Formats: sequence, structure tokens, C-alpha cells
Amino acid sequence: MAEGITSRDQSYADWYVDIVTKAGLADYSPVKGCMVIKPRGYALWENIQRELDRMFKETGHQNAYFPMLIPESFLRKEAEHVEGFSPELAVVTHAGGEKLDEPLVMRPTSETIIWSMYKKWVQSYRDLPILINQWANVIRWEKRTRLFLRTTEFLWQEGHTAHATRQEAEEETLRMLEVYRRFAEEYMALPVVVGKKTAMEKFAGAVDTYSIEAMMQDRRALQAGTSHFLGQNFARAFDVTFQGADGELEYVWATSWGVSTRLVGALVMTHSDDKGLVLPPRLAPTQVVVIPIYRKDSADKVRTYAQEVAELLRPHLRIETDFDDQASPGWKFAEWELRGVPLRLEVGPRDMEQGKVCLVRRDTGEKIFVERGLVVTESQRLLAEIQESLYQRAKDFRERHTFKPQTYDDFKALFEGEGARGWALIPFCGDPAVEKRVKEETKATVRCLPLDLKDPPAGQSCVISGKEATTWAIFGKAY
Amino acid sequence: MAEGITSRDQSYADWYVDIVTKAGLADYSPVKGCMVIKPRGYALWENIQRELDRMFKETGHQNAYFPMLIPESFLRKEAEHVEGFSPELAVVTHAGGEKLDEPLVMRPTSETIIWSMYKKWVQSYRDLPILINQWANVIRWEKRTRLFLRTTEFLWQEGHTAHATRQEAEEETLRMLEVYRRFAEEYMALPVVVGKKTAMEKFAGAVDTYSIEAMMQDRRALQAGTSHFLGQNFARAFDVTFQGADGELEYVWATSWGVSTRLVGALVMTHSDDKGLVLPPRLAPTQVVVIPIYRKDSADKVRTYAQEVAELLRPHLRIETDFDDQASPGWKFAEWELRGVPLRLEVGPRDMEQGKVCLVRRDTGEKIFVERGLVVTESQRLLAEIQESLYQRAKDFRERHTFKPQTYDDFKALFEGEGARGWALIPFCGDPAVEKRVKEETKATVRCLPLDLKDPPAGQSCVISGKEATTWAIFGKAY
Repeated sequence: MAEGITSRDQSYADWYVDIVTKAGLADYSPVKGCMVIKPRGYALWENIQRELDRMFKETGHQNAYFPMLIPESFLRKEAEHVEGFSPELAVVTHAGGEKLDEPLVMRPTSETIIWSMYKKWVQSYRDLPILINQWANVIRWEKRTRLFLRTTEFLWQEGHTAHATRQEAEEETLRMLEVYRRFAEEYMALPVVVGKKTAMEKFAGAVDTYSIEAMMQDRRALQAGTSHFLGQNFARAFDVTFQGADGELEYVWATSWGVSTRLVGALVMTHSDDKGLVLPPRLAPTQVVVIPIYRKDSADKVRTYAQEVAELLRPHLRIETDFDDQASPGWKFAEWELRGVPLRLEVGPRDMEQGKVCLVRRDTGEKIFVERGLVVTESQRLLAEIQESLYQRAKDFRERHTFKPQTYDDFKALFEGEGARGWALIPFCGDPAVEKRVKEETKATVRCLPLDLKDPPAGQSCVISGKEATTWAIFGKAY
Repeated sequence: MAEGITSRDQSYADWYVDIVTKAGLADYSPVKGCMVIKPRGYALWENIQRELDRMFKETGHQNAYFPMLIPESFLRKEAEHVEGFSPELAVVTHAGGEKLDEPLVMRPTSETIIWSMYKKWVQSYRDLPILINQWANVIRWEKRTRLFLRTTEFLWQEGHTAHATRQEAEEETLRMLEVYRRFAEEYMALPVVVGKKTAMEKFAGAVDTYSIEAMMQDRRALQAGTSHFLGQNFARAFDVTFQGADGELEYVWATSWGVSTRLVGALVMTHSDDKGLVLPPRLAPTQVVVIPIYRKDSADKVRTYAQEVAELLRPHLRIETDFDDQASPGWKFAEWELRGVPLRLEVGPRDMEQGKVCLVRRDTGEKIFVERGLVVTESQRLLAEIQESLYQRAKDFRERHTFKPQTYDDFKALFEGEGARGWALIPFCGDPAVEKRVKEETKATVRCLPLDLKDPPAGQSCVISGKEATTWAIFGKAY
């Protein structure tokens, strides 16, 4: 266990804060609920952004930017939307030394300001679809906050698309959900369940909300991304119609979808251990750290050798070197383990003499001795192996902790006390009253109705209510 | 002249708005003074960001993110700073349904919140330097706004560095100024004068402010980027000291530097013409647009040929194709000229038969016929030529409109009426009272004291006051 890091067994919550702060990802700010994202945390977010942005563009989207301030009256135009968001609004009442005629709210999400613009931009079916994404900060006044997972201000992307038909919008909703699934699984090594939200859990203003849900190491669920089919709700609220090819006027169909800096928290909570951060190689800001180990008599030669090996790697991988003479190798190893660099490359006098290097995996601690000439291909192979094995480990963990309780008593036993023993996957009647009761009695909520499961057979009973089940549902305690 | 675009002669201000809105760069929003950056405008900003971000990282900087909301009391800690910014603040007084104990302001710039964090992060000289940059939105409540050039909310980057010595901080200030100069000249094709601001024009809270200044086509000056040496002002305000190698406590030295979405406005105002946008190839989102021209009988063949040529270009350049059958070639040409794509590649039946293509320069209208096999290298050569020639043209323009008036009457004649005939470069006494009088009498201000000019010889008189000149100064009317 690294110095100063609480172990997960002792307190998972304290462990999380220790990792985030000591690995230099983020710090508390003087503004309640707002964090500072430090360079090592921001570098992770930049890598997340780069890959997602590429995937958005490959699916035909363009970036744009809309004002952060929204007239308060705009939010009131969509009834569910304002109800969902008004408790969390930050309100600007004064500006430029004067009281404003109408207060402005800081965006908690941008549907309203964006649809007020789409009203200007859309007249005919030829103006559709609009496929826009925005990278931005948003503000939601949260009572209880946690670094990355729930902060008053956070960074995110929000896609907002406008379509001529219901079908197109529904396809878009699922297309972006699939982009999120691929990104989570292939880049974050984060296995996710893809599913639909219940009416109780959906986005305020959506017809349907879909999400990707991941299990953290404390067996709680984390909603890692959402994609909403908004129907014509915002088009009606902002009177956005278009003339079809047939000359008829119709309201425009909409989607919105987003992921946020919360994903950095998901990375930490899924892969890291008591020594510190563990990062998936495809997103790690530094993939290999090169550390020479020498005594005085061999210092120059070993340093030169390490430098040469570093130069071999540099064109192919994101690397750093640590040639600091003040710190001991052991101290350095611990430091780079804390920072989550997937591979450590050590070279000592004996490695040098044999023309070798030693690669050490962050995830398993395994040491692999490699010929100098093979260092690039072997590093690449090991990084791919680490990526895959982090994913598999997390997936196995989730599967081991996904239960199918047969009775409500068994179900409740999963969620007794403060923690959670896992997720419950059950045939469910879908009744909101039952869903509400479960939440009150167990604090577990429906994370999603998984899309890849067929409905339960006719006549199967809901584990909770005993009524006929209409769907499979995953219940869990959530972040 | 393109349809619906006011000519520059008629009204430069209207021409500018026409270009920005009709080329799809930005639109007015329902929030006073805030604009929407549309996809074509944002794509330009993304290219600006990508190159600058690379240059920042090459000079050792890392990105981070600090809260957008700042306790009002923080701004009051630095006397000049609060005086400069309080008239422009937007204030959050309510959040989460309650009145806040202390109002929060939306950041007009982040020195105060960042230095409150540096206080936590800096103890010893080993913690220095801190070389951090932030990409963010900021809010300054402006009375008169103009798309991109001056908006209530804008996007920018702000570098904030902390150093152990005055010399290091001064070097950093000039290093980043040079990064801005290189970026402006090499990427934006924007010739700039590099200089120091007078006390009257410097940043509120800085010891010294440096800027790059460019001349727009209406001969007004536009401040395109600033770099500030902040001395120990913010370290004192936030009590940020460090223990030196000698054990002594000293206040930390600081810099800050920034450029904003205003640069998009500078691009438009420098290069564009009455047909629309003209973009420097290195930043143009689309560098070449491929347009086939055909009659019915040759349609399929010409389209195929154009598609093949497009595929030759695609791996090397940012291209688009326009195969729309509904619009005439003439209409398309005008549309792509409006959008500022540097090269148009036309192919008609005759070009196809001869195995050629026709390249048309956006900046000059010149047509160049090129063998199909040379289309990549010739396009690259022409794009480089356009980049260089936009720079030269703007530089010649600035030189032709930089005058050295010998008397104050000649000086005043440059700034008579609403417009400006150019800049005045004069030996200047440096007296703030004189500077103030000039501003009142002519609306011209000191844009900068150019760094590359030696001081005037001893005994030379200031053109305005007749007192001994201590420096060269450029006066101009500014955006």
C-alpha cells in the first residue's frame, strides 16, 4: 500500500479521494462543490475528448458553441425540464453593475438555448438534419459533491440533433449510445450494460433515455453516458417546425446525448488499486516511464543506455523518463505506480551488459525481460495485453457481482446497510409505484432495462411485486 | 460582389457582419451580447486551438481547469485588478434555490482563483515553475458588442505561470509573446507589431503588458494577443511565498497570457473581400473543394473523374466535394467563395479528356490548369503560395498605412472623422497626460511601444508634446 493512501477495504470513499488527490488528478477549490482539474487529470480528459471527438466527427457531427447564460424563462417552456432542473440552477441577477431585467441561469444543459436557435435555422426539410455537438462547462448546484463524480461545475460534451422524422431521431439516439459503449469498452476498458431508463430515472424532458452503466469496485453503479430521444418536446416548446417535401408543416424531432468529466472518476474507481492509479494504456497520458538504476561507477553508461532506449520508444509511444538523481529507485517506482503509468521500463548495469531491459506491468507487477531490439514491439504487445486484461478483469468482477435473486428478501439482502453486494438482475413488472417502494426500502434504483435481453417469458412474475414481469431490470445502488 | 454582402467601401462594419453571418461563422443569440459560434466558425477556432495548444506544450506547458465561479472577495485582493474588472462582472447571487452567503462572479479572467490554488501548491523552490494553461469561457459584461471582436462571453486560453525569479518570469512573458507572434504570422498570415503597452493601456494588475497588434483593412488596430509580466502582485495578494534553496522566503513571480475567439474576427477583417471569406490555408477547415461541371450526357464520367481526383487529394489535404445536382456551377462557385475555401478544383468534360483539372485561387481568382498526376503537389504548392501571399499583402497594406507624421496637426489628420487613415509611428515623450489628451482629441490610443525599434536619438522631440522623446510609439484607433 502506498504511503498515505487509505486501503479500499478500510474505506472505499477515502481511498478514492486519496487516489484522485495524491495522483495529482484534481484538488478541492475554494468554491463550494467546484474542483480544480490538475494537469494529470486534465491530460486524461484531453485523451477522452480526442477519441470521442474523432468518433463524433466520423458519425457526421460538427462542433459549435452556444452561450453559457440562458434566460430563465427559456427553461420554463418545457414543463418537465424546468421541474427537473430548477432546484439545481445558479442564477445571475446582476451584471455590469446593474440589476438584470430578467435573471439569467448558468446552463445546467443546453437544450433550451440551442432549440431557440434551431427555431431560426430550420424552415424546410432541406435544413435537416442538424448534427451538432458542444464541448462546454455546465453548472448544477449539487448538495453533496464528490471529485469528478458529482461536482457543481463539470466539463462535458452535449450533442443536440434535429431530424425530419421520428425514425431518424430514434436511430441517432441509439447510434450515439453505441458510440459511448464502444468508447467505454475499447478505450476506457470499462465494461458497460447498455439499456433504457425507466420513466422515473429518465432525463427531464426526454421521451426515452438510454444509458451505459458500469459497476465500480464497491459494486455501486455509475451512469457513464446517456443518450436521449426527445421526441418533439423541445420543438413544441420553442415552436420549431419545418416544411416537409410534401409541403406540410411538422415539428422537428430531437435527440441529445452527453458524457462528462465523471468518466475520469469512473476510470479511477474501476481499475485502480491500493498502490494508486491504474490506467488503460489507450488513454494513459504516459504509457511507459523509463527509469535507469545505477550505482555511482556505472551512472553515465546506464543513463546513456536508458536514454537510447527511450529514443527508440518515443516515436511510437507516449513516454516519460525519470533521471532524477535525488530520489531512490524504490521511491520512484512507488511514485510512478501511484500515477498509474501502465509500463515501467527499468534498466540497470546488468540489463545493459546483456543488451536487455526490464518491463514491469503496473496492473500485475509482472516483470518481463526483453532484448533491447524488441523493446518497441514488446512494449506495444504488453500495452495491448494490459488494455484487454483490465477490461476482462472488470467484466469478470461485474459478472461475479450481478445476482439473480429469486425473492424480494434475497433482493433486499444485496443492498443491506451502507454498501451494496452487487447488482440485482430481475424480471420486473415495471410499475413505478413498485420502483419507488424499492428505492425507499433499499436505496437501490433501476439502473436500466438492458437492451440485449429478450423480455421475460409470459407468465413470469416480478421478483418484487409478484405481478407479471414485462421486462428485465438491473437494480443497483448508484453514484 | 456576392449577393447580400455589403461592400467594404459602402460600410466596413456592415460588410464584416455580413461575412460572419452569411459564411456561417456565427449568429446572434437571444442573450444580449452573447453570440453562437456556428460549425464553420468553430472549426476555425478548433484549428487555432490545435496549433496553439501544440506550441504551448512544446514550450513545456500543461493544461488544467479551474472553476468558472470566483468568490467576489477574491477580486478585491488586488487593487488594480478589481478596479479594472468590476464594471464588467456578472454576479451569481442565488443558487440551488437559496441566496448565497457571498456572491460569486463569473470569471472575467482567472488570476485570482488560480493564485488562491498556487498558494496551496507552492512551498519550496522545488515546486516551481508552474507552467499551466487553461482553455475556457469567460464573461465580461460589455456595453457595445461585435461578433467575435467583443462579446459578453468569449472563449479563450489563459496561461498562468509561477516562477522563482523575476528574470525567469520576464523571460516567460516574452517567450509566450513570441509564440503568439509566430502563430499570428505563420498560421493566420497576420503580420503583427510586437510591443509593450503603456501604463494606461496595460492589464489591470500587471507590471508590464506586451501585445501583438495587427492592422485591419479599415486601418484600425486590433490587439490580437497579450502577455503580462505580473511581478509579485498576485503572489502578494494571495500570500504565495516559497522557500528558496538558501532557505529564505520570497514571493513568487508570475505571468499570464491569452488569446481569444477574437482571432476569428481578426482573420475575417484582415483577409476577406466583397465576395466573402478568405482564409489562410493552414487554418482553413476545408483547403480544397472539388466541383465537377457536366452536362447530362457526360455526367457520370465527369463525376467519376472528379471523385478519383478527390481521392488523390484526401490523404494529403482537408477537402470537400460538391456533387449537388440541384445547384448550378456558378451558384456553387459563389457559395464556396463566400465560405473562403482557398482552392477550388473544377473538372469539366474537356479537363477530363485532357487528363487535367483546373485549380482556382480564392484570393486572386487565378486559374491554373494542372495534369491530374500533379494535382497533389500543385495544390500543396498553391496553398503555400496563397498562405505567403496573404501575409505579404496584409504586411504591404500595413506598411503603406503606417505614417510618420512630423507635427501634431499631421497626426490629427490621420484620425479625423469616424475612421482612421492608418497608424502613426512617432517619437513619444511617454507622458500619461499627453497620452490622455491625444485619446480625448483624436480617439487614437497608444497601441504599443514597438520592441524592435531602438529608442529615438537623444534630443529628439515628441511629435505631440514637443518634450524630449523617450520611445517610439504606435498610435491608432483600436477595436
